Amino acid sequence: MASDFATVFARLKPHMGALDVFLREQISAFEPEIRTMADYCIDTSGKRIRPALVFLSGWQADGSVLPDLVRVAAVVELVHLATLVHDDIMDEAEIRRGRRTASREYGPEAAVLLGDALFSHALHLAAQFPTTSVCQAVADSTRKVCAGEIIQTLRRGTAAVSLADYRRIIDLKTAELFRVSCALGSELAQLPEGFVKAAACFGRQLGIAYQIYDDLADFFGREDKIGKTLGTDLMSGKLTLPLLTLIDRLPASLAEQLLAEIKGERSPQIAVWLGEMEDRGVFEAVVEAIAAELQIGMDALEPWGAYTPTGLLLQLGDVLRAQVEGLRRSTVSKS
Amino acid sequence: MASDFATVFARLKPHMGALDVFLREQISAFEPEIRTMADYCIDTSGKRIRPALVFLSGWQADGSVLPDLVRVAAVVELVHLATLVHDDIMDEAEIRRGRRTASREYGPEAAVLLGDALFSHALHLAAQFPTTSVCQAVADSTRKVCAGEIIQTLRRGTAAVSLADYRRIIDLKTAELFRVSCALGSELAQLPEGFVKAAACFGRQLGIAYQIYDDLADFFGREDKIGKTLGTDLMSGKLTLPLLTLIDRLPASLAEQLLAEIKGERSPQIAVWLGEMEDRGVFEAVVEAIAAELQIGMDALEPWGAYTPTGLLLQLGDVLRAQVEGLRRSTVSKS
Repeated sequence: MASDFATVFARLKPHMGALDVFLREQISAFEPEIRTMADYCIDTSGKRIRPALVFLSGWQADGSVLPDLVRVAAVVELVHLATLVHDDIMDEAEIRRGRRTASREYGPEAAVLLGDALFSHALHLAAQFPTTSVCQAVADSTRKVCAGEIIQTLRRGTAAVSLADYRRIIDLKTAELFRVSCALGSELAQLPEGFVKAAACFGRQLGIAYQIYDDLADFFGREDKIGKTLGTDLMSGKLTLPLLTLIDRLPASLAEQLLAEIKGERSPQIAVWLGEMEDRGVFEAVVEAIAAELQIGMDALEPWGAYTPTGLLLQLGDVLRAQVEGLRRSTVSKS
Repeated sequence: MASDFATVFARLKPHMGALDVFLREQISAFEPEIRTMADYCIDTSGKRIRPALVFLSGWQADGSVLPDLVRVAAVVELVHLATLVHDDIMDEAEIRRGRRTASREYGPEAAVLLGDALFSHALHLAAQFPTTSVCQAVADSTRKVCAGEIIQTLRRGTAAVSLADYRRIIDLKTAELFRVSCALGSELAQLPEGFVKAAACFGRQLGIAYQIYDDLADFFGREDKIGKTLGTDLMSGKLTLPLLTLIDRLPASLAEQLLAEIKGERSPQIAVWLGEMEDRGVFEAVVEAIAAELQIGMDALEPWGAYTPTGLLLQLGDVLRAQVEGLRRSTVSKS
């Protein structure tokens, strides 16, 4: 079954509307000077995948919007926005979602603090649930997301990234927040513990698969579509799955040359490596890895087919698969 | 009664020892790559004023160490350390407490994330109390601390800082964490609500007074003692109370000249303004402001003299007064 964002997200419209209203209300909790900056970050153009996971995991049979889910969706989105603000400082990124980054707009100093303020506001909202479980889960996830980003930063520009390291990094930096979104969404909707675990597993696997897709798009995407230059990961010395797969398939001398570029000892030859990737079937291998990760998540949901959220979450998997196919088409049309 | 750090802190020794053990244990909760970095930050050379406020506000008649207070002391210290790590990135500081800053040691990218990891670990610990009140209080305080820092950053290098703005900034960036340390310490020790409020008020006023003292030391301290160059606030365009007081007392033409230096339109003439400050009684005026802020806090504790923590907190006020006197002596010996 082919799914696209439009179909899945049409269903989510009232939920995303409620989330927007809630987030805008939060702005007023900030000191006046920060409201403009926070408002700038809480824009509506993001994909809001994490809130979608919260809503879909805790979906009500009648499609109604649970206020607790809106609050948790705001929490995970704010944590995500905070990491984006900090990421953009570190990457010295100029543009995000078609607008100047907060770091570019307000300066890196203010952006460090703005990220902190968004983080602490997220925890502030998490602490308003009657029990400490939400706050615990969110604080723990946030810590893991930071850990993943730190490990990635420390390894950047080195050859010291194994496949296992890569998987651990994306598990921490991306999959963890996907996982906790599903866990909290289903938990707050009072779904059975077994389902909560299955949804959390699905979220985690979707997060891993999504990050691999994102890393694949960095080489095989269309620049006009992904909104950035291709090969930025290679340029910044980041060993992702497409590069790791290529290195594994290259003869030793070429692999050494590529690693030297990663280490910044030679200037990156992106066109050369894109050619090598196509010749050596890297695209297909990475697509298979994405499918395998997704499959683990789908298997976890298998016994829960009778629950409405199960079908909705699986549709998100289909959306990701369709996006991957989209890359294949742009690859074919390029060659 | 003359008090010094030594006397007050001797009493706190077992508490600070327990805090150290607890903080070191926390390190093991971090991903292996981050342990070294976190360990680097959780050094023992800091003054640990915020933990001291927690312990003294919830002091037990028998001097015993309450585990809950140790945990909360760790929370406030971690939040403080996180803000220091981020501050040092923004100030491009090289040295803090006689060692290279985390930003200098690991690079600003990793330091942004390390600060985030320390923040989220603090919230993680706060979420482990049975109720959400600690997490709520800490998240809210953290948000205010960030807000204070943001406002200060946005106003840096501008003349747009009134006395009221200055007081609001230091209330948010410094006094808030002092306040919450006293509030949580006394609350967790199950002291009466009225005392909790009084202790919180004292903590806040001590924080305001402490920050004014710190800003005064930036002009009147001994470089070897405060471990940094004098006049850094003027150099970085930060309008603090000594400068605001001086501007108020200068003839219009000189005030304009000073403001031009704040705005970076002229190079700062620190020696000139130090001379003007001495001629125009700025030191005394600022010392009086410190005393007035402290007095408000002491008055709040007045009805609670029968409680052990009251006397201990008041001693911290004496310590601050002694530090201010220390500045006076170094001022006299310089002139």
